[in-house]
Amino acid sequence: MTAETPFRPEARAPRGFQDRRARDLRAERSILEAVGKVYESYGFEPLDTPAFEYADALGKFLPDADRPNEGVFALQDDDEQWMALRYDLTAPLARFAAETWETLPKPFRRYAFGTVWRNEKPGPGRFREFTQCDADTVGSARPEADAEIIALAVAGLEAAGLPTGAAVVKINNRKLLNGLLTAAGVQSNGQKLAVLRAVDKLDRLGPEGVQLLLGEGRKDESGDFTKGAGLSAKGIDAVLGFTVAAGADRATTLANIARVIGGSEEGDAGLLELSRIDAALKGLGVSEAQAKFDPSVVRGLEYYTGPVFEAELLLQTTDDKGRPQSFGSIGGGGRYDDLVARFTGESVPATGFSFGVSRLAAALRAAGRETAQASRGPVVIIAFTEADMAHYFSVAGELRAAGIAAEVYLGGSGMKAQMKYADRRGAPAAVMLGGDEIAAGTVTIKDLDLGRELSTGAQDNAAWKSERPGQATVPRADLVAFVKRILGGPQ
Amino acid sequence: MTAETPFRPEARAPRGFQDRRARDLRAERSILEAVGKVYESYGFEPLDTPAFEYADALGKFLPDADRPNEGVFALQDDDEQWMALRYDLTAPLARFAAETWETLPKPFRRYAFGTVWRNEKPGPGRFREFTQCDADTVGSARPEADAEIIALAVAGLEAAGLPTGAAVVKINNRKLLNGLLTAAGVQSNGQKLAVLRAVDKLDRLGPEGVQLLLGEGRKDESGDFTKGAGLSAKGIDAVLGFTVAAGADRATTLANIARVIGGSEEGDAGLLELSRIDAALKGLGVSEAQAKFDPSVVRGLEYYTGPVFEAELLLQTTDDKGRPQSFGSIGGGGRYDDLVARFTGESVPATGFSFGVSRLAAALRAAGRETAQASRGPVVIIAFTEADMAHYFSVAGELRAAGIAAEVYLGGSGMKAQMKYADRRGAPAAVMLGGDEIAAGTVTIKDLDLGRELSTGAQDNAAWKSERPGQATVPRADLVAFVKRILGGPQ
Repeated sequence: MTAETPFRPEARAPRGFQDRRARDLRAERSILEAVGKVYESYGFEPLDTPAFEYADALGKFLPDADRPNEGVFALQDDDEQWMALRYDLTAPLARFAAETWETLPKPFRRYAFGTVWRNEKPGPGRFREFTQCDADTVGSARPEADAEIIALAVAGLEAAGLPTGAAVVKINNRKLLNGLLTAAGVQSNGQKLAVLRAVDKLDRLGPEGVQLLLGEGRKDESGDFTKGAGLSAKGIDAVLGFTVAAGADRATTLANIARVIGGSEEGDAGLLELSRIDAALKGLGVSEAQAKFDPSVVRGLEYYTGPVFEAELLLQTTDDKGRPQSFGSIGGGGRYDDLVARFTGESVPATGFSFGVSRLAAALRAAGRETAQASRGPVVIIAFTEADMAHYFSVAGELRAAGIAAEVYLGGSGMKAQMKYADRRGAPAAVMLGGDEIAAGTVTIKDLDLGRELSTGAQDNAAWKSERPGQATVPRADLVAFVKRILGGPQ
Repeated sequence: MTAETPFRPEARAPRGFQDRRARDLRAERSILEAVGKVYESYGFEPLDTPAFEYADALGKFLPDADRPNEGVFALQDDDEQWMALRYDLTAPLARFAAETWETLPKPFRRYAFGTVWRNEKPGPGRFREFTQCDADTVGSARPEADAEIIALAVAGLEAAGLPTGAAVVKINNRKLLNGLLTAAGVQSNGQKLAVLRAVDKLDRLGPEGVQLLLGEGRKDESGDFTKGAGLSAKGIDAVLGFTVAAGADRATTLANIARVIGGSEEGDAGLLELSRIDAALKGLGVSEAQAKFDPSVVRGLEYYTGPVFEAELLLQTTDDKGRPQSFGSIGGGGRYDDLVARFTGESVPATGFSFGVSRLAAALRAAGRETAQASRGPVVIIAFTEADMAHYFSVAGELRAAGIAAEVYLGGSGMKAQMKYADRRGAPAAVMLGGDEIAAGTVTIKDLDLGRELSTGAQDNAAWKSERPGQATVPRADLVAFVKRILGGPQ
């Protein structure tokens, strides 16, 4: 024997990664189940691609660089090829479509739930691993395909638990923005980005602030000066007119936009697409309240080639401290016609919508739509003696057969600790089966839900006690009915 | 413009990784949903740990080596720490339990579905990424906890679709094996491994082959000689007697085992555990056919410290070419009391069961239990003209509202190609809505299921045609009923 201390690693998850427990997982699974059902009903089929892609296929690898750039987790396979964990579900879809294009039924509608990884600096609430849910149609250039994606997003969010009216999908078109930039006399790419950044600040700075940023520049409260886009007065008017073009309904908005940018070829093409999207949305039963045209939406411009979508939560929500907060975007997407062409050289039209599952779960929680089920524990059967284990298991089996989750306590502690355990597990009830009960063919049931309600003041003690006793001994045959009464009681 | 050819990456998934399509994914999801429900009903809560763990926490990192060993995908974080993708769900559970032990309700029952990665040489059917489903109880040393895990495995496999009697959980105990080895006079670790390897070959070589391997050694048909364990005649008798100790029921098997190894302290402890497991299995309603004691089960010996389990498919299955094959193990587990101690130095008892989700899906398919739903496509609405798109969408909406998946064709091809598309999608029906139908308030429905059945000879053409026409024009109000008749028709 040596006296060496054995190596003991520290037990901790890697930086920026988190363990997730029942409450979060149940909420997210219920979203995925509901959304998956809706997406399947629209003819979208599930597809799962690997966690890894070759780094060149992800577009995160320049042929002359010696390793993939920051932002992805990458490693070299034993044949020296660089692989990287996917950072979204769109790049793998483009790779899959390019690889299988000849044999796919076209258009190809697919949805995917999947983990994605970002090799970014972790921080509070900023994780390097999360789950996305995407739906895309590859191989249809029709605006109706965009409209269908929007209808899908609306139906999916509602199926996940957001009440009608709690969210809106805002729609814009990259082509309108390009038409606008032409109309506004934008010359360089730098000027274009400055204009788009200015428009993106409309919510925060208002029209006056944006006007300054479109022209010479703006000094903020601290005295810092931001150089503007340097547009002419006419150019500024065009851009501002565009951003406030939203009207009472989709048709009015289109007419307003046409007045501002009408005449440019790309702008007209964008308007035609939006008017076909409008018609298709009507056919798909998507109301004016569920999907609006909104010229102020600016989204991932390097990537999208046509219509862009942004789903926004409208419900007033509160943060952890109960203060009202604007929740903002809960998902987005758009048309991207160039991603498959990276592989094949041939343009393949594609359009899609994506949301982060944890973020939608947080939105539902903030909107008070979390189901009570998420933190519900099983009924706990107290274990008194080794000899009676078979009786305890048999009670648990009866409850399970009736659709009620149940477990026998299998630790080594006494009665009091077992009750504490049951309470911490969120058990609705504890079942006690001592020697007397077994001999008499009865069970004693303690209503733990009631205890929790009384302690939070959700129930009036005296009034309730008469019809819902905190603890009762009932014939074994009445066990299931009694527990069901507790589970069905007011929460 | 330069004449440079743009860089075009090849579209391919990394070696050993696969894309998975609807049929497989639907089958696996249906397994996970059913199994998850059963595990929750036993009081097991879901837990999700990150894809990455620190390499030292996975036990894949020796403090004096300069990188994690083969078998895991590992990379260095920007703070120089080595992280590796998890290769199973047990090591992350041990890390989680060690990290949160003070605050966990104990015993802690958790289940997990998760992707795991193995950095191994890929080959046909050998993938480097797959999904596991685990259930474990941490913090209970009671044999009843092992019995509960076995009951869970039995109930989970049946809920996933295996009929009663299609699988059996075989149970052994590491302590019995140790007792046996003592009784057989085994001295060294090398001798011990040779004995266990010999026992593991019982199925393939029969008792005569195993007898040779336990003694001096065995020459196979090709003339190759395998050196034996070198046991004495008495030792060989003990081991062989042990391997054939399985009796008609669990109690008989225990009595048989006791006769072979009775007397060794560790063997007696193992027998006592199994007899308590037997009693608990009775209480849990697990029949003799669903779970057996089988002394020939040898499983992951470095890892397990007590009872070990192996779930075996009993159904006769056929391979891709229709030849009968023995499917073998579909999952396994056991008690491991030392994993948490790696971190904390304090032993924490734990027991669990794990199965590979794709492997169970393959077993269900081999057993003819795949549901028809897995490859079912949506009803396809043929798109004739741009102008009538809203009508097509409205028909699709009606079908979806009735719970029937439906999609409007959104590609650019003509009628014939659209019909071919619908067939390739596995659509049960195609709906045609030309100008005449729209004017008359009717729809024409083509029964594609019938076409497929006729082409495979599953239906008698003439007899069936009278009551199920291949194509019909019906009033719009009868659309849903007509399609439901197709979906409900004999498959």
